[in-house]
Amino acid sequence: SSATAPIKATLFPGDGIGPEIAESVKQVFKVAEVPIEWEEHYVGTEIDPRTQSFLTWESLESVRRNKVGLKGPMATPIGKGHRSLNLTLRKELNLYANVRPCNSLPGYKTRYDDVNLITIRENMEGEYCGLEHQVSVVESLKIITRQASLRVAEYAFHYAKTHGQEKVSAIHKANIMQKTDGLFLKCCREVAEKYREIIYEEVVIDNCCMLLVKNPACFDVLVMPNLYGDIISDLCAGLVGGLDLTPSCNIGEGGICLAEAVHGSAPDIAGKNLANPTALMLSAVSMLRHLELNDRADKIQDAILNTIAEGKYRTADLGGTSSTTDFTKAICDHL
Amino acid sequence: SSATAPIKATLFPGDGIGPEIAESVKQVFKVAEVPIEWEEHYVGTEIDPRTQSFLTWESLESVRRNKVGLKGPMATPIGKGHRSLNLTLRKELNLYANVRPCNSLPGYKTRYDDVNLITIRENMEGEYCGLEHQVSVVESLKIITRQASLRVAEYAFHYAKTHGQEKVSAIHKANIMQKTDGLFLKCCREVAEKYREIIYEEVVIDNCCMLLVKNPACFDVLVMPNLYGDIISDLCAGLVGGLDLTPSCNIGEGGICLAEAVHGSAPDIAGKNLANPTALMLSAVSMLRHLELNDRADKIQDAILNTIAEGKYRTADLGGTSSTTDFTKAICDHL
Ligand SMILES: CC(C)[C@H](C(=O)O)[C@@H](O)C(=O)O
Ligand SMILES: CC(C)[C@H](C(=O)O)[C@@H](O)C(=O)O
Repeated sequence: SSATAPIKATLFPGDGIGPEIAESVKQVFKVAEVPIEWEEHYVGTEIDPRTQSFLTWESLESVRRNKVGLKGPMATPIGKGHRSLNLTLRKELNLYANVRPCNSLPGYKTRYDDVNLITIRENMEGEYCGLEHQVSVVESLKIITRQASLRVAEYAFHYAKTHGQEKVSAIHKANIMQKTDGLFLKCCREVAEKYREIIYEEVVIDNCCMLLVKNPACFDVLVMPNLYGDIISDLCAGLVGGLDLTPSCNIGEGGICLAEAVHGSAPDIAGKNLANPTALMLSAVSMLRHLELNDRADKIQDAILNTIAEGKYRTADLGGTSSTTDFTKAICDHL
Repeated sequence: SSATAPIKATLFPGDGIGPEIAESVKQVFKVAEVPIEWEEHYVGTEIDPRTQSFLTWESLESVRRNKVGLKGPMATPIGKGHRSLNLTLRKELNLYANVRPCNSLPGYKTRYDDVNLITIRENMEGEYCGLEHQVSVVESLKIITRQASLRVAEYAFHYAKTHGQEKVSAIHKANIMQKTDGLFLKCCREVAEKYREIIYEEVVIDNCCMLLVKNPACFDVLVMPNLYGDIISDLCAGLVGGLDLTPSCNIGEGGICLAEAVHGSAPDIAGKNLANPTALMLSAVSMLRHLELNDRADKIQDAILNTIAEGKYRTADLGGTSSTTDFTKAICDHL
């Protein structure tokens, strides 16, 4: 495969610890001889009036052109008059489904064994539509559409089918929000009809949280509106040790796949060679699977998991003393 | 105290397993010689046009008059054209704060030790306002007001102070819902100013879930808008074993206190003498504390906890084989 032209992929290192962990990914990919050429894009320092964000039009174009990308944490510009970078990306690129698998890491003990959960989150509407106003009271609008609900449901069932998962659980609060969450459920049911081989169930969000902490094995693939997905995916990440350890991938219209680490940019440890690059690396691995570079994906994933399992090289968040670069080198040595 | 006139309290046994577990509470209270006279009210079988609900005006009046009450699970009437019984109660009685303490039960093992959390939930607005409509898309309205936010924040800080808790954490998603959750936070900050001795922090809901499952000891008292409280309190209940084990209490304007079991009415096991009355009993205990009948509250609580800790009499949900009545008898024997 090194003879064929490399695949171009956009890379947003992000800010805070972003550049360091992105560097780790680049090294590991190099050692693993992954045929990818990164097209790096930085977050701007001025608001681009075309995007109303610190994200430039050129960087968005890069993802549109390459159709695959990897994104580090982005928190930088706290200020007024611009949209969150994460939301701008999701909106501008139509990244409608957010896939957050969550698996126990062999050898890294938490209270839970063998967690294997996939949260699939509608990624563009719900409470995230940004419509709020102040009348005599303050109101936020939650928006659910048939189109967005159908496509994320379709994605979830297709994911379950192609990944050998038995069950899709739709998470909701339709007993309270009968119209919005009710519509979401209706769409899930319609799609479920087409996938008779997949078990389909509906679980109220509060009950879902209780069941997850009592016994995560209750669930396989969980599909839900935006805000619930935000909450449930973090809960799941907590079960296996935290956001430093779980990959995430945004799926867009037209086959776009933007993998991302969803943890923060941790400005307190930025530049100190202390960050854990695992979430970004596993996200990069999911990007490789999207590109059907499964052999490379497997090799890199094994190297990451083995390094953590052996326990000799771990970053501070996992109770170890390794620097980002030492941990990365240990992974490279496994390759 | 048996010489003074008994205190009247409203009792809604509810449906499903409700009557059985309410019976347990009545027995235990009798054996413990609690000076309470129950005024029992059943859920109607017809919609009362005055309340738009299966709950009658008379039953609401009973709580208004007595100012204290205990409520079992209510799910009965699934149909159209009426409001949820739970929501009707909260709304009609102005039950603005919902207090859900969550403590590990000695001797009953879960993955977590020594959990001690109190969720204080705004109980009347947010996504629960019931305003939804269908335009080209479907919308739900989330409403946050200064008044409701201030009073629940005030309740939370007062609770922390009077219960010897160090910290109040306001849970939010103000990075997305800047106006609604932003207003909620603003109110919490204002109240925090008055309680300088209590530590105050703000935690994003997704991060809160992750921290709770990683290490519940991160938090003491958590205060938040309605929907988040619904979600977080179930998560907390899961940490100690489930909704069968955690009490809940609704605080209303004018000093009303309506304790309730928040688990479902479990129609599948109703009438089979299998239900676990612990949540309803612990809720009843919190009602006694509200009435400052602390000696009785302590005695009953000890009897419940000791019975569970000994492990000889436990209902099926806790892995035992006891019937509701056997478990109740064991508690009475401890008294
Ligand atoms: C940073 C924030 C806007 C974002 C979200 O709520 O979606 C994050 O929590 C996530 O889960 O990706
Ligand atoms: C039954 C339902 C309306 C209720 C709620 O969402 O408040 C329940 O889940 C609770 O937590 O009391």
